[in-house]
Amino acid sequence: MTRQPELWLIGIGTGNPDHVTLEAQLAIRDAALVMVPRKGADKADLADLRHAILAASGSSAAVVEFDMPTRDETLPYAERVSRWHDRIAAIWAGTIAAARPQGPVALLVWGDPGLYDSTLRIAARLDPAPRLRVVPGITALQALTAAHAIPLNRVNGAVTVTTGRRLRDHGWPEGAETVAVMLDGECSFRQLPGDGLTIWWGAYLGMPQQVLASGPLAGTGARIVALRTEARARHGWIMDCYLLRSEPGRIAAGNATPA
Amino acid sequence: MTRQPELWLIGIGTGNPDHVTLEAQLAIRDAALVMVPRKGADKADLADLRHAILAASGSSAAVVEFDMPTRDETLPYAERVSRWHDRIAAIWAGTIAAARPQGPVALLVWGDPGLYDSTLRIAARLDPAPRLRVVPGITALQALTAAHAIPLNRVNGAVTVTTGRRLRDHGWPEGAETVAVMLDGECSFRQLPGDGLTIWWGAYLGMPQQVLASGPLAGTGARIVALRTEARARHGWIMDCYLLRSEPGRIAAGNATPA
Repeated sequence: MTRQPELWLIGIGTGNPDHVTLEAQLAIRDAALVMVPRKGADKADLADLRHAILAASGSSAAVVEFDMPTRDETLPYAERVSRWHDRIAAIWAGTIAAARPQGPVALLVWGDPGLYDSTLRIAARLDPAPRLRVVPGITALQALTAAHAIPLNRVNGAVTVTTGRRLRDHGWPEGAETVAVMLDGECSFRQLPGDGLTIWWGAYLGMPQQVLASGPLAGTGARIVALRTEARARHGWIMDCYLLRSEPGRIAAGNATPA
Repeated sequence: MTRQPELWLIGIGTGNPDHVTLEAQLAIRDAALVMVPRKGADKADLADLRHAILAASGSSAAVVEFDMPTRDETLPYAERVSRWHDRIAAIWAGTIAAARPQGPVALLVWGDPGLYDSTLRIAARLDPAPRLRVVPGITALQALTAAHAIPLNRVNGAVTVTTGRRLRDHGWPEGAETVAVMLDGECSFRQLPGDGLTIWWGAYLGMPQQVLASGPLAGTGARIVALRTEARARHGWIMDCYLLRSEPGRIAAGNATPA
């Protein structure tokens, strides 16, 4: 009864149930309790998909839903995220205490628990600290490069993986050749000088409603903004990411100027 | 007979057969021909594993082996790689012509076909150009962060993914906070000032012989060099990668000086 609890963070890919690995499927099957955030009104497709993945695993684990708290948008960014994580951790602790699982507790994580995901940081707030197991999953970046059939990097090249917020605040990363941008709700590529950059963009990656666009940023950027607005209105939500590459031998400047 | 040939590049993860996704398993099953490089003397574990993954998929595809050419080490790096890719493409073309597949041709790729892998670049040399399908797979970086149960990025942080060669030639990437290093056969982290950096290292990630080490680069670096030498001697081969993170608020300098 006093043994250390086990928490499994299971990456399940980006919305294609076939992204699930055999390891993830086995882990879902072996969990005693699976905690899932309660279906929100806007991302019903994803909530349904999560339940379909659970069903397909043949798991007999108890499934309990929990409500996600909202973020206090009046706080500065770092504090806002930190407080929000505190509240989610408290909700998890309460959910686990109520369910009294007799084995590992699992959380299904879109993408990979290691890449722009908060689950590990929230788990670190639990007291007593659980024994963690992380099962890797296909990320949106991988679904993006697969859909476009392109390599992420040039030969012996480096790749900077960053966020829309950072791209807006800091411009093109100093000396970067290839930049992958995630968590960008604002088409922040519009702030870059379009000249000399190529973009590969995708939304709903791996899902039946997948949308792709690619080409020189000048021109393609505006098309993406339009595609994104239309798709978001139609589906009620959108998840997307993109890759930018500068022409060989022409590294974009560190500071962006609006195009 | 004159239809465009289909070539499927299937990511199969880093050596744990359970890294295979359902999508990869289905693709292997539906392929008409699978081309696998002939078993080399030094990486027999991986060659056997590839055949085990093929068998587990229940595929009835014809499996043909081909010999990998060697690289001409006297050429400059870029030309050496380019010529080598030309030769591999010619071998693939000959292998496919001899096998006369009546459906898609598949290649199983360790990790993900998009990340530090040549398969897409070699495929681009085929004439006629095949219709490409890429199936994403778990990369060593994901297996690394999963094994250490750490996030790849800090909150809203950027990550530079690079190679050992670049780290040696260019030092710590300008302004970087987190640096993931792949394809490093020379423990190039030894050239960095150890002060203020933390390293998470792993070899044979996801495999039964997995070895991990982490801690401040000063101290841990030497331990990794010893572990790596010992493991390589024992198994006859090694595949490893690592993550370096600078202390918060303390971005390491752009040019490395030997520690």
